[in-house]
Amino acid sequence: MRKFIEPESVAIIGASANPLKGGNALVANMKEVLGKRVYPVNPSHKEICGLPCHSEVTGLPEVVDFAIVFVPPPAVPEVLEQCGVKGIKRVMIQSAGFAETGAEGLALQDQCTNIARKYAMRIWGPNCMGVVNGRTGMVASFMRPEIWKGRLKPGGVSLIVQSGLLSAGFILQILSEGYFGLSKACSIGNRCDVNECDLLEYFSDDPETEVIALYLESISDAGRFRRAISRLQRPVVLLKGGLSKEGARAALSHTGSLAGDGRLAEGFFRQLGIHRAWDFIEWMDLAKALVLWQGRSGGHRMAIVTFSGASGIVSTDHFIRRGMAIATLSPATIEKLRTVYPPWMEPRNPVDIWPAVERSGREAYAVALEAVLQDPEVDGIFVHIYVDGSLLNEVLAFLRTLEGCKKPAAIWVVGDSAYFRTLRDGAERMGIAVYNEIERGVRALSLFAHPKK
Amino acid sequence: MRKFIEPESVAIIGASANPLKGGNALVANMKEVLGKRVYPVNPSHKEICGLPCHSEVTGLPEVVDFAIVFVPPPAVPEVLEQCGVKGIKRVMIQSAGFAETGAEGLALQDQCTNIARKYAMRIWGPNCMGVVNGRTGMVASFMRPEIWKGRLKPGGVSLIVQSGLLSAGFILQILSEGYFGLSKACSIGNRCDVNECDLLEYFSDDPETEVIALYLESISDAGRFRRAISRLQRPVVLLKGGLSKEGARAALSHTGSLAGDGRLAEGFFRQLGIHRAWDFIEWMDLAKALVLWQGRSGGHRMAIVTFSGASGIVSTDHFIRRGMAIATLSPATIEKLRTVYPPWMEPRNPVDIWPAVERSGREAYAVALEAVLQDPEVDGIFVHIYVDGSLLNEVLAFLRTLEGCKKPAAIWVVGDSAYFRTLRDGAERMGIAVYNEIERGVRALSLFAHPKK
Repeated sequence: MRKFIEPESVAIIGASANPLKGGNALVANMKEVLGKRVYPVNPSHKEICGLPCHSEVTGLPEVVDFAIVFVPPPAVPEVLEQCGVKGIKRVMIQSAGFAETGAEGLALQDQCTNIARKYAMRIWGPNCMGVVNGRTGMVASFMRPEIWKGRLKPGGVSLIVQSGLLSAGFILQILSEGYFGLSKACSIGNRCDVNECDLLEYFSDDPETEVIALYLESISDAGRFRRAISRLQRPVVLLKGGLSKEGARAALSHTGSLAGDGRLAEGFFRQLGIHRAWDFIEWMDLAKALVLWQGRSGGHRMAIVTFSGASGIVSTDHFIRRGMAIATLSPATIEKLRTVYPPWMEPRNPVDIWPAVERSGREAYAVALEAVLQDPEVDGIFVHIYVDGSLLNEVLAFLRTLEGCKKPAAIWVVGDSAYFRTLRDGAERMGIAVYNEIERGVRALSLFAHPKK
Repeated sequence: MRKFIEPESVAIIGASANPLKGGNALVANMKEVLGKRVYPVNPSHKEICGLPCHSEVTGLPEVVDFAIVFVPPPAVPEVLEQCGVKGIKRVMIQSAGFAETGAEGLALQDQCTNIARKYAMRIWGPNCMGVVNGRTGMVASFMRPEIWKGRLKPGGVSLIVQSGLLSAGFILQILSEGYFGLSKACSIGNRCDVNECDLLEYFSDDPETEVIALYLESISDAGRFRRAISRLQRPVVLLKGGLSKEGARAALSHTGSLAGDGRLAEGFFRQLGIHRAWDFIEWMDLAKALVLWQGRSGGHRMAIVTFSGASGIVSTDHFIRRGMAIATLSPATIEKLRTVYPPWMEPRNPVDIWPAVERSGREAYAVALEAVLQDPEVDGIFVHIYVDGSLLNEVLAFLRTLEGCKKPAAIWVVGDSAYFRTLRDGAERMGIAVYNEIERGVRALSLFAHPKK
């Protein structure tokens, strides 16, 4: 697997001289990290992106680590034969038009698998968008360079996505939103050979991967999956498609996946300590919390520090619905809060900080955050923040109280949305997860309420 | 009520000459719509915001439609007496520091209510952010003008919010995000007199209010509430705080509300056909759908038109979980889809449009949307869109197929987030609700699955 993810040389079969085509983007993207060891293959050109273009893969000056195939489906088997003859051991088929299109496509895909077997060659795909390596900056995908350049943020989350088009759109969204830093994003498409287990096993030994986000419609091999997850020693958050009978039927015609019995699968995932998401943004939101809060202690007793009675109440409702508890603050915390609270107000949880801010200034937030952070009765912290342009820096200043703390800490933010992203990026650099939905912050904190791994 | 919402003259007691203070923002904001008929009251100044400043409310040249009170709580009763003597019949107390702060504050609030009763005066508040009238542009609130100017978008949604600070932050967020057009946003705070029933009754006769979004911790008067809702003839979406025992306890100390028995309340709201939200953004997302889809037919049979098998499957799972169905497309629709589909692919629902786009161009989207729109077997339409800078205009072009259609239609969007807002604003002008979470689009469509009003 390593040479798929950190190659030193690649061939691009189906390279194009037209800058609007995916076959051109592939060459331009790979050239960024591998330079001259990228070999465009296309009989109609002498040069693509300033690199010499070869008419056949058999004529390349070296046996590349892997070949990316981006030619029309009927031409793929012949290309695989040539790769086999050349001695190339890894092929990534990014073209679509195989098993996902029906019986004919499935037959073509089987033909490819047979050729690969003959040459002991591994196939990644088909119908996939490839790999993005956030650490090395490698984008082995047909996304145009202007879409991803300047947006790749390295980090600890690795994605494994069983889909083609969605993963391209989704990875672009992660990059443009800057949700979290990427370790590796792997779109495995129809997974005719390389599957989620291969990658889970690889990530077990990848020190750069801290959290894994999985989108799957079925499990390739339940026994191997179980062993791979047990060996991982990293949290996994799974979004599974095909939970309903109707969804499973659609999955069958999408990637030929047997989505199987929903309830059975639920038990299997629970046993393995896998966290679950039910929608794509939720899936990212949870991965973000898991990577920010690595190694923190957990528990179910929550402190809410809020500027608003209403949001404190709605947060309480959500925590209770998830089986968590509102912490009973210790006497020491109550004493510390009294130093900033107005005399008529008895401190309690949810910690309504506004009267204290009116009396003691925004410093009161720092005092309250420090107090609940030190309180042995508190396992996790949910802070509500109002932000606008004039408050941004003050907010970021008092949040420093929570910087690198050992309890999971999340923020819910309301106010002028023009400042949300700056606030989010600043807070998340301190290890505090930021959400703009109360429910999402509560769900993230619940990951640590009943620690699973 | 009308004179609170469309006044012709107001006094601002506690006006300030300091542009950083709320008492200054109030004068500046009101002057925008009422000009010289705004009367700042403050004994220390001769002029505020270019308007003559009066030392006492009794000395004003006219009996204003209402007085906004923004002085420290202990000074409020005296101010109310003066308003009564002057013959002013409506007072809006925006100052905080009353019942929400404990026994002493509650006594002060009761004192105010008694004074009001003596003079047959209505009190709005205290502890509220006032009223924003999206149609007239009136911001009767202490938000600074630079925060809301240029952002007020008139529309059909009226908000009634039982909270103080949260509503200020929240209304700013609605304005800065441009979620939907505002008819009126009313923050009723501690509602010592004016309550949600007064406003619901007022909105019954307000042709500009098409949908009502309510945040409440308790119902002031269940009988009157029931009658007001029945008379409304407009959809209502409610976010209720204090559903859990712990949340209800917090509500008691927030606005003195008896949040009551959760399950009893559920039955009451269901009987009245009130839609429910569980979080603030969801609340707005649902209000948006209700205002965009007014008067459309409904039903539970959904068509999904998607570029991605994976998102089609996850959407199917969510529809099924909500008790809805994936429509069986009629033969006529299948025929229309065949004209753009590649020959090897059998059209079905979810309508996976990508192979058709590859064969027939993005026109295929328009053909598919037109087909499901005409299909008598389809009650609602959920479209999945990938967007980046190069596609934005093409996407908006094929969405025109759904412009002003008679079935509820929602979009889920993924891709380059830099273009989400432009896409959203464009699509919503055509009456199509845009979401970036599948679950949220499904929930919105479910509002019309079992029509309630």
